Amino acid sequence: MSITVTDIQRAATTLAAELPITPVCSAPRLSRTLGVSLFLKLETQHHTGSFKERGALNKLKSLSVAERDRGVVAMSAGNHAQAVAHHATRLGLASTIVMPAMTPFSKVERTKALGATVVIHGDTLDQAERHAYDLAEQQGLMFIHPYNDRAIIAGQGTLALEFLKAVPSLEVLVVPVGGGGLISGVAVAAKAMKPGITVIGVEAALYPSMRQVLDGRPVECGGVTLAEGIAVKAPGDLCSDLVRRTVDDLVVVDEASLERAVYEFVSQQKLVVEGAGAAGLAAVMADPSRFAGRTVGLITCGGNIDDRILAQVMMRGLVREGRLVRLRIGLVDVPGVLARIAGVIGDAGGNIVEVRHQRLFYDVPVKMAELEVVVETRDRTHIDDIIARLSASDFTAHVLPDTVGVA
Amino acid sequence: MSITVTDIQRAATTLAAELPITPVCSAPRLSRTLGVSLFLKLETQHHTGSFKERGALNKLKSLSVAERDRGVVAMSAGNHAQAVAHHATRLGLASTIVMPAMTPFSKVERTKALGATVVIHGDTLDQAERHAYDLAEQQGLMFIHPYNDRAIIAGQGTLALEFLKAVPSLEVLVVPVGGGGLISGVAVAAKAMKPGITVIGVEAALYPSMRQVLDGRPVECGGVTLAEGIAVKAPGDLCSDLVRRTVDDLVVVDEASLERAVYEFVSQQKLVVEGAGAAGLAAVMADPSRFAGRTVGLITCGGNIDDRILAQVMMRGLVREGRLVRLRIGLVDVPGVLARIAGVIGDAGGNIVEVRHQRLFYDVPVKMAELEVVVETRDRTHIDDIIARLSASDFTAHVLPDTVGVA
Repeated sequence: MSITVTDIQRAATTLAAELPITPVCSAPRLSRTLGVSLFLKLETQHHTGSFKERGALNKLKSLSVAERDRGVVAMSAGNHAQAVAHHATRLGLASTIVMPAMTPFSKVERTKALGATVVIHGDTLDQAERHAYDLAEQQGLMFIHPYNDRAIIAGQGTLALEFLKAVPSLEVLVVPVGGGGLISGVAVAAKAMKPGITVIGVEAALYPSMRQVLDGRPVECGGVTLAEGIAVKAPGDLCSDLVRRTVDDLVVVDEASLERAVYEFVSQQKLVVEGAGAAGLAAVMADPSRFAGRTVGLITCGGNIDDRILAQVMMRGLVREGRLVRLRIGLVDVPGVLARIAGVIGDAGGNIVEVRHQRLFYDVPVKMAELEVVVETRDRTHIDDIIARLSASDFTAHVLPDTVGVA
Repeated sequence: MSITVTDIQRAATTLAAELPITPVCSAPRLSRTLGVSLFLKLETQHHTGSFKERGALNKLKSLSVAERDRGVVAMSAGNHAQAVAHHATRLGLASTIVMPAMTPFSKVERTKALGATVVIHGDTLDQAERHAYDLAEQQGLMFIHPYNDRAIIAGQGTLALEFLKAVPSLEVLVVPVGGGGLISGVAVAAKAMKPGITVIGVEAALYPSMRQVLDGRPVECGGVTLAEGIAVKAPGDLCSDLVRRTVDDLVVVDEASLERAVYEFVSQQKLVVEGAGAAGLAAVMADPSRFAGRTVGLITCGGNIDDRILAQVMMRGLVREGRLVRLRIGLVDVPGVLARIAGVIGDAGGNIVEVRHQRLFYDVPVKMAELEVVVETRDRTHIDDIIARLSASDFTAHVLPDTVGVA
């Protein structure tokens, strides 16, 4: 009952006429910085922004006429929901998607717009999943599991066939791991095509559930992660078996690394990638020496990051790089002082983007005040220079800590 | 002395071994929304993030040994600077880039990091350009013009050869126009390969200089634009001749359209595109009926948008779509009121992301206060619902206008 490359090649034939081949590109800037030859498989370019369409479409096409007529049900707060909804609608199947109550507005709306009936149920993914199984039983719907399903795994594996065809020189694949459907399919296909290739899985440090399952330990994970696409507590048994047999190593990446990787994708590579999709880059950035000089394939598996979170990641990235800084400056509260301070910062080449006076709460005499200025700067050295120049003009400035939790 | 497809094919041979073919992809979501079959040529994926490498590399490879030995000089505050610096360094040539004083830090630093000697000179692009010509004369350097040069135009044209090879069904190409180098090369190549194809140029409304030149009118343009990559006051004469003979139409897009197009690229297509690179999408969004049902190629010609500007575009996009709103709410300034207001908003499904009390400056009695809350919402209808619920609880709320200039 295991999955072989033949299943995956058959899936590729099934998908061929209906799913565009996603682009592959090199990542020259990131490659140079890291000393690794990086190639990217842009799964963000699917209609619904993630690789999940491969498995979902392959599964839907495997249904009998009777199963199609009854329709399908799935549980997902994210990419699987949109993938199932989109392809069910395309193929003329009715789809019901159960989402837990905390699902973001934008994901609910998008899934509805793709033609699904959305049922909001339960406070947790587990409760929503149980409800989806109930609906499947009550209404005779086919339950489409997001990863623990042979057709799903075979569909995801088609990605590796395309990637290795486009870049035959790949030596390592670094693959995000949630439930394990993606890496299972990818590893089976890649090892069949190129037995010497190394496949490394990446889990979010808060959700190392596949590692725990492989080690025979109880699964203990949880917490808020930027990589919600791989925040899975229960890897599939089909998947964990395949991972055990075909994957060379599993690593974890912490939240700071994930955030930095999302930032680098936007800033250096001009690509919008969600947290889970940036896990591969995060792993390489965390340990570039391991990959030094090798040809490494990263799968940017999804791009569905919330617009507001993305904007925050960008601003925090600027702060981290010393290109945006918040300074608190003590001053005597008399007319003309702001002009002097602005003059010193401007002469030093800093660009003031925000100013706020503070007269309450600070530990300063009442005739004094404090000013908070947000300044665009070149880098950390430039910040030091601005502070030194302020000091030379008798203004005491210090940097306000703004990026707790981000290294 | 005109440029033919033979020149462009020769340029393609020159570039073949040294410049990766940039990816092409479809844009399914945007296509569906607009009723147009859109394909994208991702010039953002070049090492320095723009198509300018094509022309720059073709030009550098056309130099004699003696010219190479002396080195090159260019004037640019943007993508041309990085393209020349990168390929000059790659080929072992010395490069000097003159940039005006107002050039953003990040662009200066990136150009230096690519191996160029950066000279900051002059307050305007004109002054910087004159200085670059002076340096060329004094030091015997080859001046690399950003567009008005046969080798540059031929290099840019290679893009169209790749695009039509990847998508032979293209019926229309929509191409950003600054100095005119890109559209000149693209139009010559595209019309030679597929005579029936339509080529439409897009200028920023603040910089319609090519239109003015073709009309024989004086060039009058200026102002701050998101599309600084096409903010050109002096189109090349080589280019304007080619545009007159080969381009079917020129249209302009305003700043609001450019901003919205950048937002849509990130939000719908998961691609980071600078203002100039989004001009083609802006043109289609401004007049979708013109392109209805046709197969349209857009050139996302560059991705070098400032990280901070990008973050702002994202936040403003949320505001425009009614997914983020700033409400001002009048209240009696007593303990417990904030909890009540937060309760009403939360029960209505709004997610409060920022709160500010205001007790000064507003036209309210002294025992009253006003609260500003920033709330994440589903859409404009949801905002109306929240305001109605606040009103039903005796709180008067109104939306603060936050997106002046953005339709």
